[in-house]
Amino acid sequence: MQFTALEIGLLLNGTVEGSPEAQVNQLAKIEEATAGSLSFLANPRYEQFLYTTQASVVIVNNDLVLTEPVSATLIRVENAYSAFSVLLEKYNTLKLDKHGIEQPSFIHPSAQLGENVYIGAFSYIGPNVKIGNNSKIYPNTYLADNVTIGTDTTLFAAVKVYFDCVIGNNVIIHSGAIIGSDGFGFAPTADGTYTKVAQIGNVVIHDNVEIGSNTTIDRATMGSTIISSGVKLDNLIQIAHNVEIGANTVVASQTGISGSTKIGENVIIGGQAGIVGHISIAKGTQIQAQSGIGRSITDEGKKWAGSPAVSYASNMRSQVVVNRLPELEKKINELEKIIAELRNISI
Amino acid sequence: MQFTALEIGLLLNGTVEGSPEAQVNQLAKIEEATAGSLSFLANPRYEQFLYTTQASVVIVNNDLVLTEPVSATLIRVENAYSAFSVLLEKYNTLKLDKHGIEQPSFIHPSAQLGENVYIGAFSYIGPNVKIGNNSKIYPNTYLADNVTIGTDTTLFAAVKVYFDCVIGNNVIIHSGAIIGSDGFGFAPTADGTYTKVAQIGNVVIHDNVEIGSNTTIDRATMGSTIISSGVKLDNLIQIAHNVEIGANTVVASQTGISGSTKIGENVIIGGQAGIVGHISIAKGTQIQAQSGIGRSITDEGKKWAGSPAVSYASNMRSQVVVNRLPELEKKINELEKIIAELRNISI
Amino acid sequence: MQFTALEIGLLLNGTVEGSPEAQVNQLAKIEEATAGSLSFLANPRYEQFLYTTQASVVIVNNDLVLTEPVSATLIRVENAYSAFSVLLEKYNTLKLDKHGIEQPSFIHPSAQLGENVYIGAFSYIGPNVKIGNNSKIYPNTYLADNVTIGTDTTLFAAVKVYFDCVIGNNVIIHSGAIIGSDGFGFAPTADGTYTKVAQIGNVVIHDNVEIGSNTTIDRATMGSTIISSGVKLDNLIQIAHNVEIGANTVVASQTGISGSTKIGENVIIGGQAGIVGHISIAKGTQIQAQSGIGRSITDEGKKWAGSPAVSYASNMRSQVVVNRLPELEKKINELEKIIAELRNISI
Repeated sequence: MQFTALEIGLLLNGTVEGSPEAQVNQLAKIEEATAGSLSFLANPRYEQFLYTTQASVVIVNNDLVLTEPVSATLIRVENAYSAFSVLLEKYNTLKLDKHGIEQPSFIHPSAQLGENVYIGAFSYIGPNVKIGNNSKIYPNTYLADNVTIGTDTTLFAAVKVYFDCVIGNNVIIHSGAIIGSDGFGFAPTADGTYTKVAQIGNVVIHDNVEIGSNTTIDRATMGSTIISSGVKLDNLIQIAHNVEIGANTVVASQTGISGSTKIGENVIIGGQAGIVGHISIAKGTQIQAQSGIGRSITDEGKKWAGSPAVSYASNMRSQVVVNRLPELEKKINELEKIIAELRNISI
Repeated sequence: MQFTALEIGLLLNGTVEGSPEAQVNQLAKIEEATAGSLSFLANPRYEQFLYTTQASVVIVNNDLVLTEPVSATLIRVENAYSAFSVLLEKYNTLKLDKHGIEQPSFIHPSAQLGENVYIGAFSYIGPNVKIGNNSKIYPNTYLADNVTIGTDTTLFAAVKVYFDCVIGNNVIIHSGAIIGSDGFGFAPTADGTYTKVAQIGNVVIHDNVEIGSNTTIDRATMGSTIISSGVKLDNLIQIAHNVEIGANTVVASQTGISGSTKIGENVIIGGQAGIVGHISIAKGTQIQAQSGIGRSITDEGKKWAGSPAVSYASNMRSQVVVNRLPELEKKINELEKIIAELRNISI
Repeated sequence: MQFTALEIGLLLNGTVEGSPEAQVNQLAKIEEATAGSLSFLANPRYEQFLYTTQASVVIVNNDLVLTEPVSATLIRVENAYSAFSVLLEKYNTLKLDKHGIEQPSFIHPSAQLGENVYIGAFSYIGPNVKIGNNSKIYPNTYLADNVTIGTDTTLFAAVKVYFDCVIGNNVIIHSGAIIGSDGFGFAPTADGTYTKVAQIGNVVIHDNVEIGSNTTIDRATMGSTIISSGVKLDNLIQIAHNVEIGANTVVASQTGISGSTKIGENVIIGGQAGIVGHISIAKGTQIQAQSGIGRSITDEGKKWAGSPAVSYASNMRSQVVVNRLPELEKKINELEKIIAELRNISI
């Protein structure tokens, strides 16, 4: 994909300063750009790079005042960062513009496919599956019986969705994510073995959700494991059976949420955190990376850290003292000696 | 699947109370049930929902005494919970009743398939693979050379089993699990690079094991990594080379067990725990979530917590004090001042 | 594969002691070997097993002096351990000697395949993909548009590589690993929802890297996520967007490295560690399992532990005191009482 400064200027409704014929075929950061790159300058702290960059075209803010000569062609716009984001999106859309049905693929006769869908080779579309318009199912993906996929949704290569699960519109699920595997439910028996508790619920994923690579979301024992609209889950996360995650909650990589726990809206959870089962986390809660949450959090909008977690501020204070513990212990032992002496004197 | 109260009553050998023609086509919790649902009441704390439920049919205990009118048809049985579990199992068996060989699939001429097996599309059955009767290999699954699968075993979509691994009877492995990838073995060299140590062992999984989604179990360097009968592993667990896990041990999600460690029977390990290599964990040990186990545990049946782990009780006591550390430090500083004063007085 | 002691002796340039016709068809540890096994004795601590082993052939050092009779045929070589390693490698190479193109597979007409490659069934080789000589792509693997794979590289079953990623020579990637999925980048908006930040960079993996099962490496927002030559990553690791890992660094299972962090050369990171984003870790740093690294480490070659991490030695000292905290608190309270008494006396 090759574009001229003139074409990009017209697309962004910007003013071209320098050669309108300058050509670009890739996007790059201003400090790393090579010839043929399109870049942008939004943060004034990076202005120095404008005068040394190898980029062929740079998008800048209308109000930028040059203090040195620039070799790149400039495109002036109202907001350079937004303009560049628009280009990124367009670029990605072009990159990922797949459609049609590749062969071989397995599409059960009872499956219903919307218009303009992409079904990659070696994908398995099971009985009664429904896929909405403009959705993309990349190669090696598996959709079991009765799965429903909304419109404009993308499942990258090798996503696996177990039977009866429901996925909304504008959802993105990355490679290797497993949706709807059995919850971890076993009943102990008298002889020390375990009996499997059948997991007959499903997983429901609402609109505008993004789910990372190799993340696993278990189906409910009964009812549904629910991922509400706008939720963003990173890679390698574990969501257990019957968990419910509120709208616009964001969870970083390798965090685990145990069975039946309810997470509120707009919660932010750091990486490698663990949350026990059967509790509730209030709206707007922020949980630091590697925290362990063992009890319900009922106060909204508070910050937590540590394992077991306490308030973020309290955790910070305690951690400081933990690292001084050896000297603190020494001090106590010295005080003990002095007191023993004093006691001898005063008796 | 549509059933009448009469049919279910006959199946469970129960007594129908109310309309025997009431029809149900799904299972639901009593507090969430809608018309057409079959539910159950076992725990007396939920009795209130019996009088308001929308369920069409509810299974109850023989000895339940109604205190208000009920709109649902009741089926009275000896034990409502067991009866419902029986139905769950039957429901799931119907749902997952796959058999036959779907096309396209890759079955090496030297592979031996038992009777009544299911081979999903895009599955790869390598040279000399043996699959026992009634086993189900879901789509996109890969069985490398010489893999042996027992009878009545289910491998869900996209399970990958490396060469020479052995899987028993009545085993369930969920999507994305990797069995038999190379152990993490490298020998450092003088120039700072590492030489790979060939991993020529295998993984042996005994009967009645269940393994969760995207869990990884590495092959032994030599000999076997062993998962004994009745073991239940949750999702995203790491089992390193030459680990041995004793019968009926249960491991929760995201836990990692390092190389050559031996876990005893009937051990319970919480989520996100880490266990170092080359140690032994005694029978019946219980390890709390997020614990770090750095040394062998020889006492049977004890409870551990923390990282590095100590006895559960001791960890609980220490954690309480950790959170009081800032005030404790303040107290010590005050004592120090008082003692300095006292010393001045007494000298 | 069946070999005689004579054949192995010739291969290793060793001296056969005992029956040259002794036959072996498997490799085993000396203490576990059964008839028909080939084993080795390098560590003198295991010499006792030489006199009781069931192995048919044992490789030993030239200078070994027997103190009892031995039933196995011995092969004497300069260095028994190295000689055995050579055999392990040869054995594995024979095991994994796949080549040719299996059907059905999907190979885009614009893809370029080197000589002597293996393309397993159900693999997807997208537009403009290049695969170097002698590389092996196992079944169910997905290579998206413009992916480049070097020579002598092995991708085991079901590896997924997103578009534009570059993989070097002599690389091994295990099953289920995901290379190049989107970085976790979202911009918060005024109404509490998040806007996706397009991730248009790629992942570059240099030569001699090994990557474990189900590990995920995200593509850069712009530029490249870089895994330098000789890096070894274990299973279930998360590498976020724009991370750079220096040559010959080794990372154990389930560790997570957050966005834009730079890890130096020859770093060793234990399992389940977490490293925050936008920091640097100096060359030769050693990070203990389950550590949490929250700040840059600038001193080379130091050892760290704990979460938040401090120096390994300091963490060891503090942990010891943490477990004595309850008794320490008791002691402080006693001192307090004594001081109160003393004060009364001296006033």
